[in-house]
Parts: sequence; structure tokens; C-alpha cells
Amino acid sequence: MAEERIWTAGLAIIGDEILSGRTQDRNIAQIASWLNLQGIRLAEVRVVPDVHERIVAAVNALRAENDYLFTTGGIGPTHDDITVDAIAAAIGVDVEVHPKARAMLEAYYASRGGLTEARLRMARVPAGAELIENGMSGAPGIRHGNIFMLAGVPHIATLMLEALSGTLEGGRPLLSQTVGCWVPESEIADLLGDTERSHDGCQIGSYPFFREGRVGANFVIRSTSESALEACRQDLVSRLRAAGRDVIEGGIVQ
Amino acid sequence: MAEERIWTAGLAIIGDEILSGRTQDRNIAQIASWLNLQGIRLAEVRVVPDVHERIVAAVNALRAENDYLFTTGGIGPTHDDITVDAIAAAIGVDVEVHPKARAMLEAYYASRGGLTEARLRMARVPAGAELIENGMSGAPGIRHGNIFMLAGVPHIATLMLEALSGTLEGGRPLLSQTVGCWVPESEIADLLGDTERSHDGCQIGSYPFFREGRVGANFVIRSTSESALEACRQDLVSRLRAAGRDVIEGGIVQ
Repeated sequence: MAEERIWTAGLAIIGDEILSGRTQDRNIAQIASWLNLQGIRLAEVRVVPDVHERIVAAVNALRAENDYLFTTGGIGPTHDDITVDAIAAAIGVDVEVHPKARAMLEAYYASRGGLTEARLRMARVPAGAELIENGMSGAPGIRHGNIFMLAGVPHIATLMLEALSGTLEGGRPLLSQTVGCWVPESEIADLLGDTERSHDGCQIGSYPFFREGRVGANFVIRSTSESALEACRQDLVSRLRAAGRDVIEGGIVQ
Repeated sequence: MAEERIWTAGLAIIGDEILSGRTQDRNIAQIASWLNLQGIRLAEVRVVPDVHERIVAAVNALRAENDYLFTTGGIGPTHDDITVDAIAAAIGVDVEVHPKARAMLEAYYASRGGLTEARLRMARVPAGAELIENGMSGAPGIRHGNIFMLAGVPHIATLMLEALSGTLEGGRPLLSQTVGCWVPESEIADLLGDTERSHDGCQIGSYPFFREGRVGANFVIRSTSESALEACRQDLVSRLRAAGRDVIEGGIVQ
């Protein structure tokens, strides 16, 4: 079998508000789930402050190692929105006003006080970029080659992801199956490792939790092959039952 | 005035479950908030998969640039728990069984089926490490110099942070004040930038949101100086009021 081409993405979260603990990030999980559906794996995330050099460094490291780079945050109209300038510097192009973004903002703000200089900041893009539309606010996301600049506000980012759905080349989606068990994971650690080693192309992750004084764990099997995944799942369930464990198919909701 | 010493930390989140989108991360926000109270700034976060080389690379990059390094995840008993080995490799020491961790696990598991080889994995530490106790599970966190390995399960990580509270050298905590306004941020972008430039040592972040069809923003002012922070806050409120804006002191709850 030829080795499977795996498509990967890096994600740079640009945000002092995440690093200060003020805001609970919601973009990692939503972008990760969306990428999975596109057949692309999120390979690394970096959260960096609103500092030009730090954004440039993260962007260049992540795009060198991945097929795609996504960023969230810093594309608004205020002085702390420096993502466009940082990405332009990272890829070595100028910043320009995108004519269509300018027209969109003019239309959006026609009944909202007109297009000010601050608002026009939202039409600035790294030269050569295309827009990623969103139906909600006037400010579009920005695509430059394999770099995608999304909003920091999670539900605006959602709209931009929807606009991109099905447009990116990817591989086979990583499928998963979950098996739950009310067991301390230390008691079935060898069983898990043995099962994983018996099934090429499958990984098993073990995620313990504690609820209402009981110890449980979900075992998540991942593979790009539906048949390999199902064989591994059945084998794991059989082994757990043979060890006298109750199995909760589909996993335990935490 | 002598330049203030700023203490920083990096955070490596080790977890396929975060990168797959299956689990919503809760550790970044809680560790960031806790670090702030210790007078330490979270300078960068990297989320990496459960892959030895990737953990080693992230650990070495983050510890080279920061005073402290925290990690979450991968310190349990199963085959996918490889944090201890990766950190030992990154800092160039062997892995050893910590006698106290072994004794703790023996006591904890005395009434729970005894200390198996898998459970003993949780007593493995990079040579020279100390333990970070937690009152809840048998498995301790691990400290090696300025590296702190915490559990991935958020409320176990919380207990480990509590055990560390007040033990790390830090600087002056970064204080913050929030001012809210039902305004599109683009309308007061210049006002915000001007205000920030008038107050040395203060940064103003603008965080827009949309709720029930209305546009609002919170402006978060940050400074290590309480007097500078308060002067900036008063100035921002005055400028917003002079521009005819209603101000919500303390910010708008989203």
C-alpha cells in the first residue's frame, strides 16, 4: 500500500486576551473539528501575544511545517489589530486596500455613519489576498495562498469556516470511535497498548476522568480506514469484556 | 525608573484530544489566570500531538525563551503518556522511578489491587525531579527545575497549581480594568489608540462581541502599575463620555 498523503494545518491564535486568561478560547476546538471534516489534521497550535515579531515568528514556523496555516484574531479596526501587517511582513509582501473589501465596507457602513479611516483598516490585506466572506459583519476574513486569517470572535470565525467548507484539498478524514469504561485507566493500560500494537494505522488515546466519586475513562480509537477502525474497536471491546469490564459503546458522556 | 523585570512562562499542551477537536481545552485559561496572580505572564502556548519529537521541540523552544515552562497532559499510566520521557530527552537526563512517588502510589493502591507495572509508570520522573502533590489522585505532578508537568484533566491540574501557589518567583502582577460600551469598535478606534499612547505602561485591548442583535465591545486596560492603570481608566471613560458614549464600568458581561 502506498503511504497515505496526510494534509496538515497549523493554527496561530493571536490574542493577549487568551494569554491573560480573560477569555476562554473556543476557536481551537471548532477549527480542529472543521479541519477533520476537510480531511486535514490540525498538527500544532501556537497562542501568541499581540506583538508583531511574535506573530511573524509563529506564522513562519507553522507555515513552513504544514500545508495550511490558519490564524484567528487581530483583523478588526483598532490599534491592537496587527495581524494583516504581521502576515504581510512574514510572507514579504506589502499591505494594500482590497477594492472589494472597501466596497463591501462602504455598503455595510452606508447606513451606519459612513466609512471612516478606522473602518477602512478592515479592508487592508497582504497584497494579492482574496476575501473570505461572512454574512454577519462587514469585515471579511482574508486568504493569501495557503494562509487563512479568521476573526477572533468565535461565531464570526464559524461563518468564515462555513464559507471555506469543501474548498480546500485534503486527504481522508481521520475517523474515530469511542469506547467507555468505568475503570481506572492504570488497570487496563497493558491491554490498551497491546490492542493498539495489534492494529496498524490505528491510534488509541486514553482519557480518564472523575465524576461523582467514580473513576472512568474513554478510549478513543482513530484511523483513516473505516475497516481498520471497526476491527480495532471490536477487538478492544472483546478484550475489555474478556477482562471482566463493562463497556459503554460510544463512550461515557462526561 | 529602572526597567521592570518581567517574568514569563511558556505552556505546552500535550494532547491529541485537543488537536482533534474532541476535547475543549480548559487549561490555558486556568493556568494563565493562575500565573497572573503569581506575577508571571503567560508568553506563549503550543499545543502539540502525543509525538515524542514534537513534544521535545516545543519544550526546548519554550524553555529557552521563558523563565518557566508548564506542560499539561501525558503523565498517566497508559501507552500514550509519554511526557516524562520527552522532557527527560529534552533536558538530557535519564528517567528514574521517584522513591516518594513510588511510596505514594503503593499506599494509594494498597486497597485498590496493588501497584502494577502500569501504575508504577506514574512514578517515573526525569532524574532529579521533585513531586507536585495533589490530594485527589495517586499520581503527582512533577517539577524539574523551572519545568512543571501537570495533569491534563483540568481539575487535577487545578490542585497541582494550588500546591504551587506562592512558591514561584515572579514580578508585579499584571492588573487589569475593563470598560464596556455598546458601540462598534470601529467608531472609537482612534480614541482608543490615542488613549493608549497617552499612558505609558498601559495597553488597551478591544474585544468586540455581538449579542441579541447589538454590537458591543469591552476595552481591557492592562498595567503593572495600579496608579497608571487607574489614570488610564479614568481618561478612557472621560474620552468615551465626551464622545457621547454610554460607558459600562467594569465591562459588559457577554
